[in-house]
Amino acid sequence: MKWCRQALLLSSSTLYGYPMLEFAKHEICSALTKHGIKEFIFVPYARKNYNWYTSQIKAIIEPWGFHMTGLHTYPDPVKAINASKAIFVGGGNSFLLLKTLYELNLVATIKKRVLQDGMLYIGSSAGTNVATIGIHTTNDMPIVYPPSLNGIGIVKFNINPHYIDPVESVQQQGDIRDINIRGYLKMEHSRRVVGLREGANLEVDGEKILITGINGAVLFGK
Amino acid sequence: MKWCRQALLLSSSTLYGYPMLEFAKHEICSALTKHGIKEFIFVPYARKNYNWYTSQIKAIIEPWGFHMTGLHTYPDPVKAINASKAIFVGGGNSFLLLKTLYELNLVATIKKRVLQDGMLYIGSSAGTNVATIGIHTTNDMPIVYPPSLNGIGIVKFNINPHYIDPVESVQQQGDIRDINIRGYLKMEHSRRVVGLREGANLEVDGEKILITGINGAVLFGK
Repeated sequence: MKWCRQALLLSSSTLYGYPMLEFAKHEICSALTKHGIKEFIFVPYARKNYNWYTSQIKAIIEPWGFHMTGLHTYPDPVKAINASKAIFVGGGNSFLLLKTLYELNLVATIKKRVLQDGMLYIGSSAGTNVATIGIHTTNDMPIVYPPSLNGIGIVKFNINPHYIDPVESVQQQGDIRDINIRGYLKMEHSRRVVGLREGANLEVDGEKILITGINGAVLFGK
Repeated sequence: MKWCRQALLLSSSTLYGYPMLEFAKHEICSALTKHGIKEFIFVPYARKNYNWYTSQIKAIIEPWGFHMTGLHTYPDPVKAINASKAIFVGGGNSFLLLKTLYELNLVATIKKRVLQDGMLYIGSSAGTNVATIGIHTTNDMPIVYPPSLNGIGIVKFNINPHYIDPVESVQQQGDIRDINIRGYLKMEHSRRVVGLREGANLEVDGEKILITGINGAVLFGK
């Protein structure tokens, strides 16, 4: 099967020194424009307050020339996703986001829409995490219990968003990022992990995957 | 019901500038000696290599005058816990530890032994996390999927081990500890969270809970 998948996976929505999403403006606008998309759906489930979160993102994106609607405002979210040409899944907590996507039957729906129909998927942070094979390498706390750790599976590896490189003189021993990722890679079911630094994006175009933006990424293997 | 629970919950096994467990030597020795305990069981399930992990801890603890055996060396772990006066649950990954404890039917067994029979529980990092109401505020990555996030429930709140205070000039926006803890506290099922800095311990003696060691703790409420 030839994949028609189109995705833009951002490490984060914010980058130090820039207004929210500003660093990725070019990539987001290009991805939408390339596919002739003028309107899309925002998925706010990674945070608790959907209205507030949607209005925050709307205030940034709409001046760029696109129309955006929160998925929570549709009576039937599955139907809304089936009718949309693009979605933007915002960051927040990956466990909360994935649990809500499962509860609303959206994991399978989004997977089909992206992999079979070519719907454009834009994700940031938690929205990037759930787009992968699973959220096993999230930095988020498990504030809720999702029915599975498996993600939508747009890419067949794990991503660690907000990746930070090990610091030489670190005095804190408990949560060093690359050690935690290597701990995951010792598990039988683990996959490759892309440590995506803030400011870096993965652009997925069919079988091609490009690292764009600034700061780059680190690939971890078994 | 009057609790006879006895527990020593360490934030971490290592503290910058000290050999492993050295900073907590006094508290560990006192807790064991107070109850006339000369031998105890080590629970190595938070890491993959049980033999290696047990031998590491054994090399530190046995020179202090105690005899220690890895739980994985017993044919029936439930029986072993039922016959032991004290256990030490080592750190590593909280998800891996909790999943294994559930699989071996040890969550309920340890709970009963500590809350009803007064078995001494010593935990460090992940071993501290699983001793609480749940692992919702762990820093660990969900490298495996446990059947629940609920812990043993020796204390009725959550702990964030390795707690680090917010840093003024942080350039990384994605995983700031206190923001993540406050995200958890927005959930309906959430409890109070104790952010336990490295070097700090909770000493649980019946209804009394003391913060000992160095560096202290931060209490987060709704």
